[in-house]
Amino acid sequence: MSLPEKVRLVEVGPRDGLQNEAQPISVADKVRLVDELTEAGLSYIEVGSFVSPKWVPQMAGSAEVFAAIKQRPGVTYAALAPNLRGFEDALAAGVKEVAVFAAASEAFSQRNINCSISESLKRFEPIMEAARSHGVRVRGYVSCVLGCPYEGKVSAEQVAPVARALHEMGCYEVSLGDTIGTGTAGETRRLFEVVSAQVPRGQLAGHFHDTYGQALANVYASLLEGIQVFDSSVAGLGGCPYAKGATGNVATEDVVYLMQGLGIDTGIDLERLIAAGQRISSVLGRVTGSRVARARSAQ
Amino acid sequence: MSLPEKVRLVEVGPRDGLQNEAQPISVADKVRLVDELTEAGLSYIEVGSFVSPKWVPQMAGSAEVFAAIKQRPGVTYAALAPNLRGFEDALAAGVKEVAVFAAASEAFSQRNINCSISESLKRFEPIMEAARSHGVRVRGYVSCVLGCPYEGKVSAEQVAPVARALHEMGCYEVSLGDTIGTGTAGETRRLFEVVSAQVPRGQLAGHFHDTYGQALANVYASLLEGIQVFDSSVAGLGGCPYAKGATGNVATEDVVYLMQGLGIDTGIDLERLIAAGQRISSVLGRVTGSRVARARSAQ
Repeated sequence: MSLPEKVRLVEVGPRDGLQNEAQPISVADKVRLVDELTEAGLSYIEVGSFVSPKWVPQMAGSAEVFAAIKQRPGVTYAALAPNLRGFEDALAAGVKEVAVFAAASEAFSQRNINCSISESLKRFEPIMEAARSHGVRVRGYVSCVLGCPYEGKVSAEQVAPVARALHEMGCYEVSLGDTIGTGTAGETRRLFEVVSAQVPRGQLAGHFHDTYGQALANVYASLLEGIQVFDSSVAGLGGCPYAKGATGNVATEDVVYLMQGLGIDTGIDLERLIAAGQRISSVLGRVTGSRVARARSAQ
Repeated sequence: MSLPEKVRLVEVGPRDGLQNEAQPISVADKVRLVDELTEAGLSYIEVGSFVSPKWVPQMAGSAEVFAAIKQRPGVTYAALAPNLRGFEDALAAGVKEVAVFAAASEAFSQRNINCSISESLKRFEPIMEAARSHGVRVRGYVSCVLGCPYEGKVSAEQVAPVARALHEMGCYEVSLGDTIGTGTAGETRRLFEVVSAQVPRGQLAGHFHDTYGQALANVYASLLEGIQVFDSSVAGLGGCPYAKGATGNVATEDVVYLMQGLGIDTGIDLERLIAAGQRISSVLGRVTGSRVARARSAQ
């Protein structure tokens, strides 16, 4: 077992997190959240999504958010661009990096984005082409990599071709997401073993949800498989849309705490991160989903 | 990495859990909890503590609980016996296995049991002698193995001699407890590496608290170090007395779920266990501390 000296955390709270909170928040609160995350030392922040506010009202105002945040050099501020229209809006807002997402489960793909997995991959082609011509980097997500709310178990063999397709299409990194949080450590290790035969480990990331309390064990299992990039959400923002009241994205604070204990550098100031998480939680009128933040505030 | 085919879970909810809940519950509710845990397939249940109800009102009535539970052959029903008086009371109640506890931190030992670590070990000698002569098995706990609420970090080198002393004194198993839940996976591995030079791995157990969300990652790290016995608490009963409002003992449900995912047999029926945890949580008027139980009930 050899652990890396540092890992990169991809902060998805302002996008994946807030998108799944019941209550939309103001552009000003989003801007403040992103700025506080920048100040806490995050090097990658997924700021918003360029999608119709009819479909995702929580993501309305993403262009205004991009216009107002203080962008620190060296930090990546990314947006989700589910289609070419979204990509063009992102481009117009000055976004330099976008993300696209596919599912590892046919049923989830159909119900979530109304098309098959292969159709969804085809839809990305014009985005990839436009991104290349504008020098925009594209990150890929694969959802439901360890389980699907409609199909149940998902095998690593179902994930590998989708990850490979995104990689071959030009995604510089592919993040494998356990969307419903049902995966455990052994399945996580096998997932990365199998997928890394198709996409180099250095271009894979882990995206875990803590719905079943397994996220940090899965992060640790991923580290043992050579994975060095993890998605997480400050204050565990997001909840789980498939299990109301349950936890969603693993909290960035808890991942940072784990990494500190392992002697792995994240470049993040945990105290400032906790403060940012507590503030956005109070805006949402909810208790933080970070155990570390709860333990600290309870002392 | 080779994982074991099965692990043994030591259910500490009725004792370590309920002892740390603010609200004492009735003997009848305790009996029902223990019986439901037996029916769920637990092979080891720490039922109560023989200690003055002046000090620990939550543990009053332990003798009545022992008299009323349905003891299934092959299942161990144990009690905490902090001193010879407690041991004699346990013996009179027909208890066949007791537990004693020492701390790895001097400050914790002084504040928790009003004596030094070596004095506490001396106090166990008459218990060990009486236990031997009555054919009662004794399990040892070491608390604060990865951190102390008063001293901060605790090194594996502080833990090893305490674990060794308990083992040499006749404890057939020594459970290492991260009482405040601050430990992380790398520290856990090092702990078992160092302590297993003094006590065989097969006679060590892991006892993790989820206060900082690290418990399952620490369980997984322990498995990788050859540990095959884990303490846990149904519904995460117990909270953390050193961080009010924070989580305490790792929930048995969540450990069972992890083991199922790893293909490791626990002999436990997860659905019955979840039902037992939901019932005792409703008696206490609190939400279960098990993420798995919350995710299941939210579906």
